[in-house]
Amino acid sequence: MSTVYDVTTWTVPGNPAVTCWTDVGAVINSIIAAVKAGQPDQNSKPGAVIYLPPGDYPLKTRVEVDVSYLTIKGSGHGFTSSSIRYNSGDTSSWWEIWPGGSRIRVQNTDGRAEAFRVARTGNPRLSSVVFENFCLDGVGFTPDQNSYRNGKVGILVDTANDAFRIERMGFVYLERALVVRDADALSVSDNFIAECGNCVELIGSGQASKVTDNLIGAGYVGYSLFAEGHEGLLVTANNIFPRGKSAIQFRNTNRSSITANRLHGFYPGMITFEGLNKENLVSGNHLRREAEPWGPMQPYGNGRDDLFGVIQLRGDNNLVTGNLIAWYVDPAKITPAGATPTMILVASGASNVIATNHVVANVGVKTVVLDATTTGTRVLDSGTAAQFQAYTGSYAFRATP
Amino acid sequence: MSTVYDVTTWTVPGNPAVTCWTDVGAVINSIIAAVKAGQPDQNSKPGAVIYLPPGDYPLKTRVEVDVSYLTIKGSGHGFTSSSIRYNSGDTSSWWEIWPGGSRIRVQNTDGRAEAFRVARTGNPRLSSVVFENFCLDGVGFTPDQNSYRNGKVGILVDTANDAFRIERMGFVYLERALVVRDADALSVSDNFIAECGNCVELIGSGQASKVTDNLIGAGYVGYSLFAEGHEGLLVTANNIFPRGKSAIQFRNTNRSSITANRLHGFYPGMITFEGLNKENLVSGNHLRREAEPWGPMQPYGNGRDDLFGVIQLRGDNNLVTGNLIAWYVDPAKITPAGATPTMILVASGASNVIATNHVVANVGVKTVVLDATTTGTRVLDSGTAAQFQAYTGSYAFRATP
Amino acid sequence: MSTVYDVTTWTVPGNPAVTCWTDVGAVINSIIAAVKAGQPDQNSKPGAVIYLPPGDYPLKTRVEVDVSYLTIKGSGHGFTSSSIRYNSGDTSSWWEIWPGGSRIRVQNTDGRAEAFRVARTGNPRLSSVVFENFCLDGVGFTPDQNSYRNGKVGILVDTANDAFRIERMGFVYLERALVVRDADALSVSDNFIAECGNCVELIGSGQASKVTDNLIGAGYVGYSLFAEGHEGLLVTANNIFPRGKSAIQFRNTNRSSITANRLHGFYPGMITFEGLNKENLVSGNHLRREAEPWGPMQPYGNGRDDLFGVIQLRGDNNLVTGNLIAWYVDPAKITPAGATPTMILVASGASNVIATNHVVANVGVKTVVLDATTTGTRVLDSGTAAQFQAYTGSYAFRATP
Repeated sequence: MSTVYDVTTWTVPGNPAVTCWTDVGAVINSIIAAVKAGQPDQNSKPGAVIYLPPGDYPLKTRVEVDVSYLTIKGSGHGFTSSSIRYNSGDTSSWWEIWPGGSRIRVQNTDGRAEAFRVARTGNPRLSSVVFENFCLDGVGFTPDQNSYRNGKVGILVDTANDAFRIERMGFVYLERALVVRDADALSVSDNFIAECGNCVELIGSGQASKVTDNLIGAGYVGYSLFAEGHEGLLVTANNIFPRGKSAIQFRNTNRSSITANRLHGFYPGMITFEGLNKENLVSGNHLRREAEPWGPMQPYGNGRDDLFGVIQLRGDNNLVTGNLIAWYVDPAKITPAGATPTMILVASGASNVIATNHVVANVGVKTVVLDATTTGTRVLDSGTAAQFQAYTGSYAFRATP
Repeated sequence: MSTVYDVTTWTVPGNPAVTCWTDVGAVINSIIAAVKAGQPDQNSKPGAVIYLPPGDYPLKTRVEVDVSYLTIKGSGHGFTSSSIRYNSGDTSSWWEIWPGGSRIRVQNTDGRAEAFRVARTGNPRLSSVVFENFCLDGVGFTPDQNSYRNGKVGILVDTANDAFRIERMGFVYLERALVVRDADALSVSDNFIAECGNCVELIGSGQASKVTDNLIGAGYVGYSLFAEGHEGLLVTANNIFPRGKSAIQFRNTNRSSITANRLHGFYPGMITFEGLNKENLVSGNHLRREAEPWGPMQPYGNGRDDLFGVIQLRGDNNLVTGNLIAWYVDPAKITPAGATPTMILVASGASNVIATNHVVANVGVKTVVLDATTTGTRVLDSGTAAQFQAYTGSYAFRATP
Repeated sequence: MSTVYDVTTWTVPGNPAVTCWTDVGAVINSIIAAVKAGQPDQNSKPGAVIYLPPGDYPLKTRVEVDVSYLTIKGSGHGFTSSSIRYNSGDTSSWWEIWPGGSRIRVQNTDGRAEAFRVARTGNPRLSSVVFENFCLDGVGFTPDQNSYRNGKVGILVDTANDAFRIERMGFVYLERALVVRDADALSVSDNFIAECGNCVELIGSGQASKVTDNLIGAGYVGYSLFAEGHEGLLVTANNIFPRGKSAIQFRNTNRSSITANRLHGFYPGMITFEGLNKENLVSGNHLRREAEPWGPMQPYGNGRDDLFGVIQLRGDNNLVTGNLIAWYVDPAKITPAGATPTMILVASGASNVIATNHVVANVGVKTVVLDATTTGTRVLDSGTAAQFQAYTGSYAFRATP
């Protein structure tokens, strides 16, 4: 019995009217049922690969993945900018108007939010499920195309999991692109995730995972990358572009790394630590902060002012080193009006280290600000004395010569 | 003549009883023989691709790869934790109990240790052999499942080679997962290599290679990554989890980089330099050292004490900068009892530079220790004067303010 | 209608004599025409995948790609060193003599320079074209095999583009391997690009792109990586080997990152900034500079002398930190004779920061030199006072202790 399935050639037993051209979700569910039926023996469940050739597939029914070792793959992440198109007026002369590749149009009629839900109770945790090289497209937002809202979720992994791979995928126009709960040794790599409300959300808890080598950019309503309760997360080699309420938001995440990324944002708080975050490394990143240059998106923001910090830390013993912050905002757009913008804010916590960072800005800025409750921060070679502001007496400071 | 082969449809000439379900090694050897027979002309030997669909394939005969441009690929790295399962008691209710995907069970009956051996004499060196996206499973250890011993080797590349790729593979429960001798421009990328005695061993010599974007974690008996005689090796963007006698061990390796990795270990010597290692860069890494938390593995260790250093350097002109070491060990477990643990030990060599590293620990530690034979080490912004210990008079020191 | 095409089974309508064995370019053009004919509706143009199995394919006619969402892929990057072979004398006993895998021999007879040209006018820009895992081989150079000249171009993307991927490809013996004009969110990842005049050229302008995880090495005539007019380019995790006139050359490129790469070169100017380059980050890189060790290439050079700098900066507010430069050149080969070599030259610009870099060299060197027009450079912990040379009075300097 073959373990290689093609959605375009699969016939749903007892329901041949359902095809990948009417509901690819029902087709994939039918294939998964066949995989399970064909691998009843606990001793040999190698899984399968389900292939989506390039095509336009509507999904009406949520896919329920509850087997390990399943690869769902296509031939093309198929991103194009729907945001540009929706804001372009007459596109009747355009060559094409939608994303493509192996494209699933997320159009659930089953009352579900998700295109794919991956979950299983009992033992062991699901292992080694792979999503690879296809496109999940939410098609449109409501009530308008700049809202980043439609309630649609691309992939939700909803129970603890091990050794999953989300690689080379495309996600566009979903309110939430990829949500993974309780990840262990997850790889999110080389994806293109843009024009989604949130791009990558690692929720609940997690350990020993990596988010590497991606092109990511959320809408103003959410996060390009959010991680909660994680330990040992490695975020490296990503090019994170606007917009994103935060480019990277850590909540109660410890001993993780944000290194060698490029980040570009239009709002304060490009890297935001929320809650209590300990012993994280933020190094070798390039952060470019500008004001929104594009008319259609200028009405929006993330609600934070320029005292929030381009980087805001909360927690203890974090090391921020070797980063370059390039800040350019029309002074008229600084909030509160007339404020001196903050580059790195240590908002709470003890024993953080800020060393050898460089800031360039078109106005006078505070490169590092220490809030009143912070203690023992060491600030080295990260600005002049005039650029440093401490609302606490507990710190060490060495000015850049 | 097609150059695309599928192990499930191949018939061994003269021996149709042998199939991928009886001995996938013999089948692949038969395919390789056909590739060679079909490409006799020195002027056109493009090679082939051998595909393993998801399935459970026993390997009884070692595969001998002696042609360039051969890709052996599957659809699924198929990792699951065999260690957890073997230590879990009754698993009769488990959904599945073995690794999966395109899984080869390494069960040689030919007296060989290796599932795959890649070797050829004469000119040129073998080029561009690719292993991709399948699972090599050693099935079990002996005499007990926590020994990490079974004599099994996943892949041994045994002669000089150029432009090989080992990518997206899974390796589990092998004594030695991947061993490559005399590599040039090797790529080991995006693999999942865990619960093996040793994970990646780059032996002999090598140059201009990369180990990037992997999830790796060896057993207590061996190395997650070992490199010997290498020049210009780039180790970046890896998440290296326990256990591993060393997470990374360099022997006589020069001018190589360990940057932007996350390392987690349960023993001293997470990064160990052995022999003479010159001009290496260790930067932007996160190192988390804890004591073993899991009962079944608590009897084991790597035999080193806490004076060994979380990082131990031997050699000259190495630069260690921008790293964060987060150390948390129950004081009762520190060895020798009552010792002040060492974070970075410069054990030998001249002119090493340790700059702008941050250490957080639950006990008093020495952040940098210089042994008596060392000369000219410069230690900058990597701890207080009280945290620094020099058994030599030849050094420069600047305390973190 | 299938969207999966195989060049070995395609029949060109009306011209069955043309096959992939006579002209793979004409075959691919014919497939593209079929894709376009089969997807006439602006509302559904998912594209296609064109597959090249391992094989030796001559290309006589340039491929014209003018559809989005097209993946052209093979099974094997197929690199072998043609340079070694051409300089090896009698190779009649060699196992094989040419590159392999899914190999296209670039042998245009149509008067074109390029194997592939990707271009389209009108709206939208081409999106999500993918080149993956095949080999583009220029076969030979003229007038001699060490010239790196043959006028051949592997891939030219000649109009603005979005979300392209060039991944896992091989390029060899082309004068220009990959040229991309006006890239947005481009991924050039995990390729093997060597023995080409130029390897990667990002021309015109570009933004939010990444060049990651590649093995690259150009000839002495050109660049391993060239970027012009880019903003927010991320260059990380690459192993860039000789030769290359420059390993990395930026021209008028701003707010980009060169982090965690390994570079090896035989000439001055391994990283060269040309024109005006602002606010770039150069961190965590290992740079090895030697003299050419191989006889056949010793006649050649890049024309720069040892006062040029291993790194030469031009522009403002660039941050160079955490890099290791390992320099070893026979004093007799230093030019001008008797000169003290320069490691980092700030040739022009304001407010650059050079911090915490380590240099090891076999002769006395200047680790940092500031030219007369530069202003406000800060040089911290990057050499002794004797190793620092300022031809300007506008700087700050802190010696490595």
